[in-house]
Amino acid sequence: MVITEYEDGVRDNVRKARQAGKKVVLIPTMGALHEGHLSMVRLVAADESERERERTYVVMSVFVNPLQFGPGEDFAAYPRDLRRDAELARQEEVDLLFVPSAQEIYPPGSQTTVQVADLAAGLCGAARPGHFTGVATVVTKLLNIVQPDEAVFGQKDYQQFAVLERMVADLKLPLRLRLAPTVREPSGLALSSRNAYLNWEEKKQAAGIYASLRAAAELIGRGQRDAAAVADFLRGALERETRGRVEYAEVRQKKDLLPVAAISKSVVLLAAVFIGRTRLIDNLIVEV
Amino acid sequence: MVITEYEDGVRDNVRKARQAGKKVVLIPTMGALHEGHLSMVRLVAADESERERERTYVVMSVFVNPLQFGPGEDFAAYPRDLRRDAELARQEEVDLLFVPSAQEIYPPGSQTTVQVADLAAGLCGAARPGHFTGVATVVTKLLNIVQPDEAVFGQKDYQQFAVLERMVADLKLPLRLRLAPTVREPSGLALSSRNAYLNWEEKKQAAGIYASLRAAAELIGRGQRDAAAVADFLRGALERETRGRVEYAEVRQKKDLLPVAAISKSVVLLAAVFIGRTRLIDNLIVEV
Repeated sequence: MVITEYEDGVRDNVRKARQAGKKVVLIPTMGALHEGHLSMVRLVAADESERERERTYVVMSVFVNPLQFGPGEDFAAYPRDLRRDAELARQEEVDLLFVPSAQEIYPPGSQTTVQVADLAAGLCGAARPGHFTGVATVVTKLLNIVQPDEAVFGQKDYQQFAVLERMVADLKLPLRLRLAPTVREPSGLALSSRNAYLNWEEKKQAAGIYASLRAAAELIGRGQRDAAAVADFLRGALERETRGRVEYAEVRQKKDLLPVAAISKSVVLLAAVFIGRTRLIDNLIVEV
Repeated sequence: MVITEYEDGVRDNVRKARQAGKKVVLIPTMGALHEGHLSMVRLVAADESERERERTYVVMSVFVNPLQFGPGEDFAAYPRDLRRDAELARQEEVDLLFVPSAQEIYPPGSQTTVQVADLAAGLCGAARPGHFTGVATVVTKLLNIVQPDEAVFGQKDYQQFAVLERMVADLKLPLRLRLAPTVREPSGLALSSRNAYLNWEEKKQAAGIYASLRAAAELIGRGQRDAAAVADFLRGALERETRGRVEYAEVRQKKDLLPVAAISKSVVLLAAVFIGRTRLIDNLIVEV
């Protein structure tokens, strides 16, 4: 595995991989790697024969992007352990690890942002103004540096995926985005680097998020088609099961995250909950 | 010359050109082609031997981009003559003419914009809010469709060039931008599709814009280093020579269009003037 901090290092190595006829896949991360991230590397390998995997060049980026954190958020506290990340990436046979400095991504004078309007406005975007502009901007940069055939994002951040899928289509970027299933602890808690902030008691509470999403999905399974009733049920379940502060509990169209009144197509149940001082998000797609 | 309305048509043809080992150059235009546009095609040919020109694939786009026009501006009136444009492009041996519909560039649901902050804020950006966001967004799309090695823009729209150069650097787009010199009528009037709006008398007045820029440049040539004095002189000259309404008359750093107090490095003199109801811009680079 090659490790580089520099844009030029990425371009050189990707060019060589291209010349060797390889397909290029990018997995952008903020580091503090867990099974959720590592499963994305395996996802790339899983739908390929061993020979195909040989023909695939996997680039992983580790960059805690300052632009997607708001004032008062956990940019400084966000867990960082490059040594451990590099070891895990090596074990998964990542080909190239890109670990840029903030200076490499945002040199002095940088002033261009990529903004997605409607999709970025609600849910996490309402609570974190500017967050998705930060995400869209850094992902555009990473995509233009690596120029991959595919990029993989985790379902845990479903709104992020929807925003980026829209952005890629709108900006006519020539690549395919893939959604990697959320990886969970046995308790149901979605893996997240922010779980490191939770103590033992809070972890038990946090498991209530997935239990609530499951219960709301079962309500739809039993025939409930009134989205507002499902959302109310979800909010109540979250409050009861997690004893946290519910930031949002929503039922949205899977395709474009638009609000829905009567559930007739696939929807996604989305929740953001503060467990103590830690803000956690999760979601569940319900195919109708 | 191939003409296509479709993104896929561009991608297919550019892919073939790439496979044939050709360098790809994009010349984005809003059509109503004049010698300024055509000189850009010749610029590509000029620095290449005949054999090199054979190896260069020139893509020209013609698209009157609604997103870069404000309410009350001349989007509807902007001159359009695709038949004539195609004939001129053919004569200049353009290889591929891309003439997309608005639907092709902005399909329903489009909501992503590219914003350049400081560089787009003053000068034309102050008078035309959203203009450069429209320009940056459409150029990003065109660059991602064509994926050229080079793109050429005219110096007449110098702020546009500065905004796009910054955008390309910030978004890490892998291409080189080239600035094509302004082409002028014998009177000095910079060629512009909007000159079609001028009557005979207004054309004479409009020639005063370049005469004023030249006079201000000569003032610097004679040793004047006070930018404010040069800008005042330029404004006065524009008012006198054109009898139009001066929107701005400014002296800025060539590199980043920042305001300048004492002229010590290369500057650009920029002006926007209403001749009757027609808004015209021009500029002159002064190397110090």
